[in-house]
Amino acid sequence: MNLDFTKLDGLVTAVIQDHATSRVLMVGFMNEEAWRKTVETGFATFYSRSRKKLWLKGESSGHRLVVKEIATDCDQDAVLLKVEAIGPGVCHEGYQSCFFRKLDDGEWKTSDTRSYDPEAVYKG
Amino acid sequence: MNLDFTKLDGLVTAVIQDHATSRVLMVGFMNEEAWRKTVETGFATFYSRSRKKLWLKGESSGHRLVVKEIATDCDQDAVLLKVEAIGPGVCHEGYQSCFFRKLDDGEWKTSDTRSYDPEAVYKG
Repeated sequence: MNLDFTKLDGLVTAVIQDHATSRVLMVGFMNEEAWRKTVETGFATFYSRSRKKLWLKGESSGHRLVVKEIATDCDQDAVLLKVEAIGPGVCHEGYQSCFFRKLDDGEWKTSDTRSYDPEAVYKG
Repeated sequence: MNLDFTKLDGLVTAVIQDHATSRVLMVGFMNEEAWRKTVETGFATFYSRSRKKLWLKGESSGHRLVVKEIATDCDQDAVLLKVEAIGPGVCHEGYQSCFFRKLDDGEWKTSDTRSYDPEAVYKG
């Protein structure tokens, strides 16, 4: 289950896709420890570049990502995780997917409606 | 159509998804110029980190990616392109998708069959 962590300063790209709908929910990065934890626990775990630490997705919101299937690409520097997303949405801004803005006539426009209230989930 | 190129040394992550089947075909990176060319031309263009130059996907194989829809994520450092993939496969190793290996009992195993002969396409 080796991956190539050398091409992105110790990280691989992780694409998260809903296993039932095939919607792409988010993109994150994993270092070797996050990758190992993801495989061992079955919950998607990332490396936060801004906070410089491991980040179990859902640790504050409860919106965990249960891993159903893992694939890697030809040069093994990216992984594709098919997941069951626990809860109403993956995005901390209250949407089902982080990809809630579409390019429309040269501008980003919000194309989804919120699936939950982020203030209520992330308060405190 | 601004994106945040600051978090990944001048690049954003680009996830390529088949617009008809929703299969994730590949992950690449775009610098600002590749991003602009992608939008202007309607063909996915990446920045090759290894060759340090722009890379119009399909420039040698003819297997271009025709952009159908573009979304960005909450922090605007990744894009999701829904595409029509011209030709039998996106991966230079001869597969429909670069994600042709699945994790199976701790090992990467090829889970697809080749959709074309890469030697015939990339020769010379």
